Amino acid sequence: MDFSSKLIEEAVNAFSSLPGIGKKTALRLVIHLLQSDIQKTEKFSHSLLKMRTEIKFCTNCHNVSDENICNICSNQRRDNTTICVVENFRDILSIENTHHYHGTYHVLDGLISPIEGIGPDKLNIPSLINRIEKGEVKELIMALNPTIDGDTTIFYLSKIVSKYGIKITTIARGISFGGELEYVDDITLGRSISARLPFENYLSGQ
Amino acid sequence: MDFSSKLIEEAVNAFSSLPGIGKKTALRLVIHLLQSDIQKTEKFSHSLLKMRTEIKFCTNCHNVSDENICNICSNQRRDNTTICVVENFRDILSIENTHHYHGTYHVLDGLISPIEGIGPDKLNIPSLINRIEKGEVKELIMALNPTIDGDTTIFYLSKIVSKYGIKITTIARGISFGGELEYVDDITLGRSISARLPFENYLSGQ
Repeated sequence: MDFSSKLIEEAVNAFSSLPGIGKKTALRLVIHLLQSDIQKTEKFSHSLLKMRTEIKFCTNCHNVSDENICNICSNQRRDNTTICVVENFRDILSIENTHHYHGTYHVLDGLISPIEGIGPDKLNIPSLINRIEKGEVKELIMALNPTIDGDTTIFYLSKIVSKYGIKITTIARGISFGGELEYVDDITLGRSISARLPFENYLSGQ
Repeated sequence: MDFSSKLIEEAVNAFSSLPGIGKKTALRLVIHLLQSDIQKTEKFSHSLLKMRTEIKFCTNCHNVSDENICNICSNQRRDNTTICVVENFRDILSIENTHHYHGTYHVLDGLISPIEGIGPDKLNIPSLINRIEKGEVKELIMALNPTIDGDTTIFYLSKIVSKYGIKITTIARGISFGGELEYVDDITLGRSISARLPFENYLSGQ
């Protein structure tokens, strides 16, 4: 596309450098900003810059935070005997939105991946061990993606924390609610038959 | 959605205030910025702010521009005896991308719309008359949307410029290239039969 203005071209390029935004969408967004008050663009730019420069990571669980300790770790009503281990802070948002979990989290910042050369030393594992060594933790919930990397990470973590004698669980895998058997892949369907539950559990939602 | 960080919440709200961007997409964009260098966010914010604060409008044709006169009006190789009248600067981009037009433009900044209370006095019509009164213009091409407002505007303009004795044309309406007759609406199909062209014109692409 050939713009009559260098300023517009740069703004379009800025937007289209973001994932999932092409040149046409970028132009539409730039035109929107042009047609809105100048204050809108000022506020927009300012809030992004402020977010990126002032964001902190919780020193306890590595979640994104406005303070040194995130509001989940500092919340006295959360059960800090249970730690849910996740790959990144986005997973925390997803789990929090379910309102089904009231423990704390630990963000690994990745998964062990021999193919991509990511070893355990690149993940936030020492801080997890530190938290366990304080003696309060009773259960580690592994809420990692059901992939080879996820399973490798679960296996590695389960081995190195085995000496502390804490319970290790993984989130349940099976058929999605509202899903249709016809479209479920073989492995999931096979495992969900092996891991069948008593009907009473189903009724109580456990 | 419940964010653990006010900074992230504000950045997500900033993105989702743009048209066509929902909360989930906004979060994805924020996470992208968080995972990229801090310089990326700085450059992004800076180019938008610079665009919005420094953009000018051509004093001749009202196109967006980095200077007081846009690079189409100041281009000596453009034919300034022909003016293509458009609704907004976005239409200029579309027409320029066709590489079929070598004249100049005039941006009305809207269309006459009795329903929305937009009268001729709110459009850039006086500056168009000024340009015509200089005596060089030979043709006005009306490249306005084929809507009631577009037609009203064409009719109004054709009346007020009739005394200058210049040629007034409208862009051709008909079947799209690659379109299928089956899906064309009745009015367009009917008119394209009435306005049929000699086959030689079709071959020469005129």
